[in-house]
Amino acid sequence: MNSLSDEDKKNLIVRLRRVEGQVRGLQRMIDQEKYCVDILTQINACRGALKKVGLKILDRHVNGCVKNAISQEEGEEEIISELMDVLDKFTD
Amino acid sequence: MNSLSDEDKKNLIVRLRRVEGQVRGLQRMIDQEKYCVDILTQINACRGALKKVGLKILDRHVNGCVKNAISQEEGEEEIISELMDVLDKFTD
Amino acid sequence: MNSLSDEDKKNLIVRLRRVEGQVRGLQRMIDQEKYCVDILTQINACRGALKKVGLKILDRHVNGCVKNAISQEEGEEEIISELMDVLDKFTD
Amino acid sequence: MNSLSDEDKKNLIVRLRRVEGQVRGLQRMIDQEKYCVDILTQINACRGALKKVGLKILDRHVNGCVKNAISQEEGEEEIISELMDVLDKFTD
Repeated sequence: MNSLSDEDKKNLIVRLRRVEGQVRGLQRMIDQEKYCVDILTQINACRGALKKVGLKILDRHVNGCVKNAISQEEGEEEIISELMDVLDKFTD
Repeated sequence: MNSLSDEDKKNLIVRLRRVEGQVRGLQRMIDQEKYCVDILTQINACRGALKKVGLKILDRHVNGCVKNAISQEEGEEEIISELMDVLDKFTD
Repeated sequence: MNSLSDEDKKNLIVRLRRVEGQVRGLQRMIDQEKYCVDILTQINACRGALKKVGLKILDRHVNGCVKNAISQEEGEEEIISELMDVLDKFTD
Repeated sequence: MNSLSDEDKKNLIVRLRRVEGQVRGLQRMIDQEKYCVDILTQINACRGALKKVGLKILDRHVNGCVKNAISQEEGEEEIISELMDVLDKFTD
């Protein structure tokens, strides 16, 4: 169980399928010896897209699981400390 | 033509194939309503792996194309300004 | 009013005073024409220290203001959307 | 000796003096218990400004020291591997 609606799920899977295609494209670019800067630009695009997907899920998580844990006073400390850990890594 | 050796290419493609698998895994995680924090952890792993691939390519590009352009005094200004642009985005 | 304890405040101000000293040190390094890579290393140190200060404040904010807004059902939507905005920029 | 012109130096020191003022402002904000999100916004501004200063110095370093080392074939390997190390940390 998580905090994503059916529409969120559809939307995120579409975006991730696109990222998957970009990562496959990266392999082709390397195999075909494309110009390094073009490969790096594509890598930046993938990382940016993954970051956006992450921010969306983060938003849903805070608005869902975190909010529920707090309002029901159930496991709120764990869920917040877990959120902080994942944020720490997300900002690397 | 770029600055990657055959070994670099093999190594980078293996790593990107792994990232591709992780991105496919992300779609499954979302479809199967896995816990948001686990999805975010996987996203962080993908972004970290792509960053490492990018740094490797950057290294090869500077040691190859950029170095050649400078030592042959051919298009060095363009290649350096292009490098700076891609670095700017890479650090986002 | 914010979510920082007196000890947090003391601790954060000490850390920020150190960052202030590092930024002053950076000006001296530039003035005295120190080696670029050493300047960049110092810049990385400052940015890393500021990130840590930010993560600490974020932690306190979520555990304080955000948690209170949710458990008192008062302005929780605004406070969460505001949190997401600041996170978005924090991850740049 | 580094790769910064007198104008670069003046410009960078002005920008760093502004960052120094912002970091001092951060200490005041914490002392005066300003709202966490406003403090975080100010931290983001400082980090962004430091990043821009870093990119400028990086640009000058590549166009100066790195370029010279390569065209004079003197210590080019060390200078490039050193550049890669600092880039690695800069992208954190």
